[in-house]
Amino acid sequence: MSSKAMKNCRNVISGFKAGALGLLMAAACALPSPAAADSGDDELNKYVRILHKGAPRYGVLSLGQVRLLDKSFFGDDPKYTGEVVALKEAKLLAPVEPSKVIAVALNYPNPRALKDGEIGLFSKLPSSIIATGEEIVPPPGSKALHYEGEMVLVMGERARNISEAEVADHIFGVTIGNDISERSIGTNLLNIIRGKGSDTFGPLGPWVVRGLNYDDLELTTRLNGKVVQQERTSKMLNSVKRMVSYISRYITLEPGDVIYTGTPGKTQPMKPGDVVEVQLEGAGTLRNTVGRPEP
Amino acid sequence: MSSKAMKNCRNVISGFKAGALGLLMAAACALPSPAAADSGDDELNKYVRILHKGAPRYGVLSLGQVRLLDKSFFGDDPKYTGEVVALKEAKLLAPVEPSKVIAVALNYPNPRALKDGEIGLFSKLPSSIIATGEEIVPPPGSKALHYEGEMVLVMGERARNISEAEVADHIFGVTIGNDISERSIGTNLLNIIRGKGSDTFGPLGPWVVRGLNYDDLELTTRLNGKVVQQERTSKMLNSVKRMVSYISRYITLEPGDVIYTGTPGKTQPMKPGDVVEVQLEGAGTLRNTVGRPEP
Repeated sequence: MSSKAMKNCRNVISGFKAGALGLLMAAACALPSPAAADSGDDELNKYVRILHKGAPRYGVLSLGQVRLLDKSFFGDDPKYTGEVVALKEAKLLAPVEPSKVIAVALNYPNPRALKDGEIGLFSKLPSSIIATGEEIVPPPGSKALHYEGEMVLVMGERARNISEAEVADHIFGVTIGNDISERSIGTNLLNIIRGKGSDTFGPLGPWVVRGLNYDDLELTTRLNGKVVQQERTSKMLNSVKRMVSYISRYITLEPGDVIYTGTPGKTQPMKPGDVVEVQLEGAGTLRNTVGRPEP
Repeated sequence: MSSKAMKNCRNVISGFKAGALGLLMAAACALPSPAAADSGDDELNKYVRILHKGAPRYGVLSLGQVRLLDKSFFGDDPKYTGEVVALKEAKLLAPVEPSKVIAVALNYPNPRALKDGEIGLFSKLPSSIIATGEEIVPPPGSKALHYEGEMVLVMGERARNISEAEVADHIFGVTIGNDISERSIGTNLLNIIRGKGSDTFGPLGPWVVRGLNYDDLELTTRLNGKVVQQERTSKMLNSVKRMVSYISRYITLEPGDVIYTGTPGKTQPMKPGDVVEVQLEGAGTLRNTVGRPEP
């Protein structure tokens, strides 16, 4: 195993609570992988969910191949089944199935301010989640459908009223989200759930990555190939540890729950046929197209 | 079987789509039940979830006894296991585990108006749900924790962009909810999720009832035994068919998802030790106490 791969393994294992996932990770990193040793490949810490023979399956991505698990990363003692699928032949699903989709608002420098100490939060919905490659469908009456490229946190341990110091141990990893927003309807407290939580408004993926320094990653959004948002997560007004600790004082977070961490700068409307890509340093690219509005 | 029980069976079976649940219901209604035949008992259409030997289990309530099923009411071909638990010895859980908790606002006569044709919606969270008998815990900084007694719809079939005429076939039944609201924080679009979705803010139960005429049921809330809300669901500004059809244009509803349908009249703050009960005609009483605030 290369020194880079070894370092990833250390990142993954360090700070990781004892238990099923710790053992899984130790096993993943210890697996003999001659190709990885040669290539310095860092895919060992990428977790995917794919459609395999008609059923959703979890797996670990390594060297362009998905090694399937018998259950979710979050399950009790997941094991490799021996099944391997080439990534290029796999239909990627959103990498997790959250029980909740929490989103943080106004989390990069902006002219709006909240009450001292408050963090702006809202909820998207599990039914809004789509995978990379899938189509964003404008809802009835759509007039201003905007992208919002974001880093997304994936919880690994139940978090209830945890301190900032405890946050890192409760996070499984990060993925990428596009907080699709219909600005013509998501403007007050009694319609934001339609404006932010309608079907297909939660692109998520392509996979979950562990071991990244989520406090300082470059986040880039492209619309039809042109960069329209670019910022580092170090510019977030609320750090990861502050956000997660704050949310957990009110709302218990479960393994697999996701937190969209806010979008930088300005956004603009999209039209049918547009291609929107959100890239997060070390975590790949989430790519979606905009479909025709529903009749 | 009494004529009343038979009528319930017809209500249950009529309009019910062919499939696993239809068969289950047919079986439930066809079961020889001499006691029911004598008593005119109408409990055959009450669906519960209980904690049994440390695990959550689904069951059907009949004559004070819970007959356990091998899986959820919403599962594929649920069957009775033969296990029977006395209701008075059972620890009731919230009767369903929704993937989404949608709530309708301003749905009884009130001075606030929305844009023509709009229905006010917001989201509570699965993590906010508690069962009858469990404690509502005021969140940090709680200053005005209000009850809101409501009828709750439980979806039985996936609903995506359905017409009003299709709604009845997609509803499994009704239960009772208390849409607990911290008025000091749930006042704008970036904190309503804390004001309405914090842990313990979603009392739900005691069970799901099928076959009721949900368009006209009496809804009563009592605080420490005194009636504080009383209205019929016929006074809802948006009917069940209109609400569900509207929501389904934006948000796909899944089996087990719940819709809190709004609260009538005015509400008032509660204090630790208070007992709040919400009663819905034919559906029983949801009873919760208010605990001490979190430190």
